[in-house]
Amino acid sequence: MKIAKPYLLFLGDAPDQLAAKTAIGIKDWRADDCVGQLRLKGCNADAGLDDMTIAEGREAGAKTLVAGIANRGGIIPETWIVVLREALEAGFDLAAGLHNRLADCADLRDTARRLGRNIHDVRHPSETYPVASGEKRTGKRLLPVGTDCSCGKMYTALAIEREMLSRGMKATFRATGQTGILITGEGVSIDAVVADFISGAVEAIAPANDPEHWDIIEGQGSLFHASYAGVSTGLLHGAQPDALVLCHEPTRAHMRGLPHYALPSLEACMEANLRTGSLTNPDVRFVGVATDTSRLEEDEALAFLAKTEADLGLPATDPVRTGVGRIVDNLD
Amino acid sequence: MKIAKPYLLFLGDAPDQLAAKTAIGIKDWRADDCVGQLRLKGCNADAGLDDMTIAEGREAGAKTLVAGIANRGGIIPETWIVVLREALEAGFDLAAGLHNRLADCADLRDTARRLGRNIHDVRHPSETYPVASGEKRTGKRLLPVGTDCSCGKMYTALAIEREMLSRGMKATFRATGQTGILITGEGVSIDAVVADFISGAVEAIAPANDPEHWDIIEGQGSLFHASYAGVSTGLLHGAQPDALVLCHEPTRAHMRGLPHYALPSLEACMEANLRTGSLTNPDVRFVGVATDTSRLEEDEALAFLAKTEADLGLPATDPVRTGVGRIVDNLD
Repeated sequence: MKIAKPYLLFLGDAPDQLAAKTAIGIKDWRADDCVGQLRLKGCNADAGLDDMTIAEGREAGAKTLVAGIANRGGIIPETWIVVLREALEAGFDLAAGLHNRLADCADLRDTARRLGRNIHDVRHPSETYPVASGEKRTGKRLLPVGTDCSCGKMYTALAIEREMLSRGMKATFRATGQTGILITGEGVSIDAVVADFISGAVEAIAPANDPEHWDIIEGQGSLFHASYAGVSTGLLHGAQPDALVLCHEPTRAHMRGLPHYALPSLEACMEANLRTGSLTNPDVRFVGVATDTSRLEEDEALAFLAKTEADLGLPATDPVRTGVGRIVDNLD
Repeated sequence: MKIAKPYLLFLGDAPDQLAAKTAIGIKDWRADDCVGQLRLKGCNADAGLDDMTIAEGREAGAKTLVAGIANRGGIIPETWIVVLREALEAGFDLAAGLHNRLADCADLRDTARRLGRNIHDVRHPSETYPVASGEKRTGKRLLPVGTDCSCGKMYTALAIEREMLSRGMKATFRATGQTGILITGEGVSIDAVVADFISGAVEAIAPANDPEHWDIIEGQGSLFHASYAGVSTGLLHGAQPDALVLCHEPTRAHMRGLPHYALPSLEACMEANLRTGSLTNPDVRFVGVATDTSRLEEDEALAFLAKTEADLGLPATDPVRTGVGRIVDNLD
């Protein structure tokens, strides 16, 4: 089910920008979908939107209050619940990407039921998906894949969608994680579906489309991550990508959360993704590299990109530093 | 949680042996855990056990009534529910591997609660599992992997466990599917866990053990199955197998349920499993081949095994026709 837009972004009492990074991501990628932000006393984050009350947000046309913040210790504070309930009463739906479900709070659940409002706990899939058919679908698909988790796959996908749309191409970002779902208003938290349906869920969110349309599917994890490679494999098979983009953070000392696992080489990561991806799309190929060089100085970063480009024979970019235009140039 | 043994096997009104194959599997592999069978009028299946009433089964010491049958059309018949409730009243726990949960039947759920009985719907994981750590565990592990689904991986694993135990080796079958769980009384339906926890669940059910102990982990799916390869990948990573056994059914025309997908060659399947498995166990190797040659005549089957053995340089067996002794001979 689609989350109703526009949004009023709830930043709660976020102690810093990092705690509100979901809200900031929504603002960065879908500013037109955000009427304002609602902050509690003590909030040190700022998404750069007008501060509004519940009533003001409603007045400005917002339909959903989005809790774009991390909560601490797995508890939803009572100060949030007061605001969330007030939002329901004022006519808002609620959306959040927390590990806890807002709908597990009896007060919110009962209020929403009574008033006929929706609560979207986007980390918890509410739909059931079919087993993947593996059948070829019309339309084109691009998937960013990573040497590791958290190396810029969502950012890369959104940047490529934006670049394509700016060129008048048909493109749709397809969200597979909670922040992506809140940004677009739909998608599936692919790591939270039942294992049998990983590929089937991806087939469902990126269905057959116009022959020249690109689905830009949000990647997750890595084939080389010992905890999550099953998710990455099922995602790759369900996506049936025509085009892969290799995502990499060059300063990482080991796989995220696994100090005893080294990162794969870029070449090994490409080979594994081509081999695995070719099961459902024999024509899969890499079209570029998207790195997160934010931890390097400018000259180091540019040298790294130049070397990567020479080594791999692919456009090597940093979506923030250089943009992704040269990757889009490299598509058919 | 372990399922209490011994069992009384419930065959219901199974129209033929195939519909009762779970019950028959339990009897074949754990006859000592079965006190008898309970059949309804019209049942055409026979697990080869004494027919008993609920009261007789209880008298014989049975602790759990196991519904070892398939139901039709996703409905649990009222004739079954009457018996299952009577069993709860008589002191039995219940166990089943149906798609439907027995515990979703309000009558059974409420009766079980009132009397303090357990209902084990083994297709639906009731435990939560951690994210995989990827850390090396003591003890040895063997995993059957397949060119396709349903090509004898559970049977192979159970046959290898039996062969090892008959030689005085330390070995434990670790179930990852509903029939395996009912056979052993514990395990996890790996295709039903949340995707993020596939590998972690396998790490949990096959934990550190004596250095000379073998966990024989039930395999699932295939790296080459477009619907389920994510499950197979996560299972392979979590198992960290020292030894792989290649399972194959040589007459299959295409991947199960996917008429447009050809089976991989045995060599390609071995290479992919070694490549993927080496992430969490760099020393992984194949120790044998276990085929289901039941659709071949004896001379064709033996010729196929001889050719496979020559081609791959590994003991090639059919667990039913030739046994798996030569695979166990080939372990360190």
